[in-house]
Amino acid sequence: MKQIALLGATGSIGLQTLDVLRAHKEEFSLHAMAFGRNTKEAVPLIQEFNPAIVVVQDEDTKQKLEREIDHSTILSGSGGLIEASVADSVDVVVNAVMGSIGLPATLKAIEAKKSIAIANKETLVTAGHLVMEAAHKHGVELLPVDSEHSAIYQALNGENAKDIYKLIITASGGSFRDKKREELAGVTVKDALNHPNWSMGAKITIDSASMMNKGLEVIEAHWLFNVPYDKIHVILHRESVIHSMVEFVDRSVMAQLGTPDMKVPIQYALTYPDRLDLPMTKQLDLEEIATLHFEKMDMERFPCLRMAYEAGRTGGSMTTVLNAANEEAVRLFLNNDISFLEIEQLIEQELTNHQVIHTPDLSTILSIDKTTRERVRSHLK
Amino acid sequence: MKQIALLGATGSIGLQTLDVLRAHKEEFSLHAMAFGRNTKEAVPLIQEFNPAIVVVQDEDTKQKLEREIDHSTILSGSGGLIEASVADSVDVVVNAVMGSIGLPATLKAIEAKKSIAIANKETLVTAGHLVMEAAHKHGVELLPVDSEHSAIYQALNGENAKDIYKLIITASGGSFRDKKREELAGVTVKDALNHPNWSMGAKITIDSASMMNKGLEVIEAHWLFNVPYDKIHVILHRESVIHSMVEFVDRSVMAQLGTPDMKVPIQYALTYPDRLDLPMTKQLDLEEIATLHFEKMDMERFPCLRMAYEAGRTGGSMTTVLNAANEEAVRLFLNNDISFLEIEQLIEQELTNHQVIHTPDLSTILSIDKTTRERVRSHLK
Repeated sequence: MKQIALLGATGSIGLQTLDVLRAHKEEFSLHAMAFGRNTKEAVPLIQEFNPAIVVVQDEDTKQKLEREIDHSTILSGSGGLIEASVADSVDVVVNAVMGSIGLPATLKAIEAKKSIAIANKETLVTAGHLVMEAAHKHGVELLPVDSEHSAIYQALNGENAKDIYKLIITASGGSFRDKKREELAGVTVKDALNHPNWSMGAKITIDSASMMNKGLEVIEAHWLFNVPYDKIHVILHRESVIHSMVEFVDRSVMAQLGTPDMKVPIQYALTYPDRLDLPMTKQLDLEEIATLHFEKMDMERFPCLRMAYEAGRTGGSMTTVLNAANEEAVRLFLNNDISFLEIEQLIEQELTNHQVIHTPDLSTILSIDKTTRERVRSHLK
Repeated sequence: MKQIALLGATGSIGLQTLDVLRAHKEEFSLHAMAFGRNTKEAVPLIQEFNPAIVVVQDEDTKQKLEREIDHSTILSGSGGLIEASVADSVDVVVNAVMGSIGLPATLKAIEAKKSIAIANKETLVTAGHLVMEAAHKHGVELLPVDSEHSAIYQALNGENAKDIYKLIITASGGSFRDKKREELAGVTVKDALNHPNWSMGAKITIDSASMMNKGLEVIEAHWLFNVPYDKIHVILHRESVIHSMVEFVDRSVMAQLGTPDMKVPIQYALTYPDRLDLPMTKQLDLEEIATLHFEKMDMERFPCLRMAYEAGRTGGSMTTVLNAANEEAVRLFLNNDISFLEIEQLIEQELTNHQVIHTPDLSTILSIDKTTRERVRSHLK
């Protein structure tokens, strides 16, 4: 039986991970569970799964939770996340927290030679070189949970990395794919949260609308699969049926397809290299879908994607800035403090003003992350 | 360097196999080459590749060839095919002859533990149980060259057979896909040979028009991948971009895509589990193709496909009859002796009248093959 540490249990990926565990009680057990402040959602889950370790975001939440349930090991903060991730019994750490706060725990879990199911792309965007260096050093495999990266991982199963010609990441286009740039000025938070294909958390849905999500995925793919940016291609595919592809040197293209259901890549990361049945997921019916469309991605229409490629190619601390500025700008947009188009303006400004540091260490990254966020917030005043 | 025995060198697959060998002279060498009677096409190939063994169909062709070139080892007939296939130096036998005459040489090559690249689906349709039993007994891998089976083989790379939920074979629909049944009465050989996507030999192009090719592929897939007929699904996909798919138990579907070029599956069979570059093949450009279509396959519209499923489910000698009747009926159609719709009528008649023999041995199969052909020809009189 595999023992799981789930970081981000009450988020969209976290809840769907618990659905997978529920469906395969004989295969998986929840050893540790971390969440932010949503005790209302968390209490019944703690009662159902009875994890040995529970981690919450801060001391206030910890005290609140202790009043609500009787549990011996409730921890809090970044230290708690790390303790849950490196616990002896844990086999797989599912990193599904939001944003770059999952980074230190991921690095510690790699040092402890845990398998990492990585749903948190910000970890790789912020500090890809540190994470991959640690993974190679400790012989740890990073199992992607993002549907695109899971598709590529599945397409690479049994293949040699040297035979990759290019990666082809598909993009649904997000909530605003049918709007022209001039129509984006007045869009609301509610408009942006209405994703055409996938049911996901708020931050990633905004990132999909701005196409920054695809940009973060390009950077994530660069690190996970060790492929240069010139060989990572993004294509608009509005049905989200082909989740991504790999073209090999012999012109053969391997693709992974399915209905848009995150439980498939989540479970694959937990069962790899095996598979288990997943009856609650709808089967793909291509006869019913009938038509799949593909279009060229327009970098002018989606400047966030262009900025992500540019930051990725520059490398070093530039992607840390990209990610921190984006996280903070999305937060401001979700609070109705800025307009949708100001997200990309704030990011561009941070990237332009940043003096890149090549191969930054963890403390440099955390410091750049912090100051970038502060500066983005200060633009408001 | 891999030493190749190529059976059917002057056919469509044979010539494309030679293109692959030409592109990778440091990887492959042609040790033996067999063809029928086309000495005009063969002589320059013999001069170019200088194979140690040359095999022709009959004694007349052998004498003709001996007058044209100076070569020490020219053999003929079924015995020659076998000798070429089991020669000590040979690593891979590419079986690309037309029809079931490749069967005895394939069985002998398996006994001699040669890798078999199988482009000749009739071998498996006629005697799948014998071929697969021999392959298992001698630990020999059958490497499919058909684009559909190569796609499935690639999709299964690194996977466990127990995790297969179903195979999904795509069908372009052939030359007559846009004609109604009542429009098929008057079609000509020239109409039938005009395949929309693939450049192939005459027999397989007619089989594509009648959809018997897809039926033979279903039976071939049953044997190659050990999957029951209920789990082999055929879907109409007119662009032939997705060459086939595998759905796994977790609802994940793996597909292989590419431009319609047989050199890709041919080379894959020769390089598996590695890949080599193939610059002469056009890259897939989904942005240019823009749209992929999928439709339900209509078994009433395509009775040959229905008959193939029925013969496959009955098993034993029934698929031998299916294949022999089809080969002979297609030959009659290509000679303008019968109409297009008479192909399926002749096959149906043979299937209806046949008393099935379960697990027939090789001599029984060869005898049923012969008498079926004779009966189909006799309908003419």
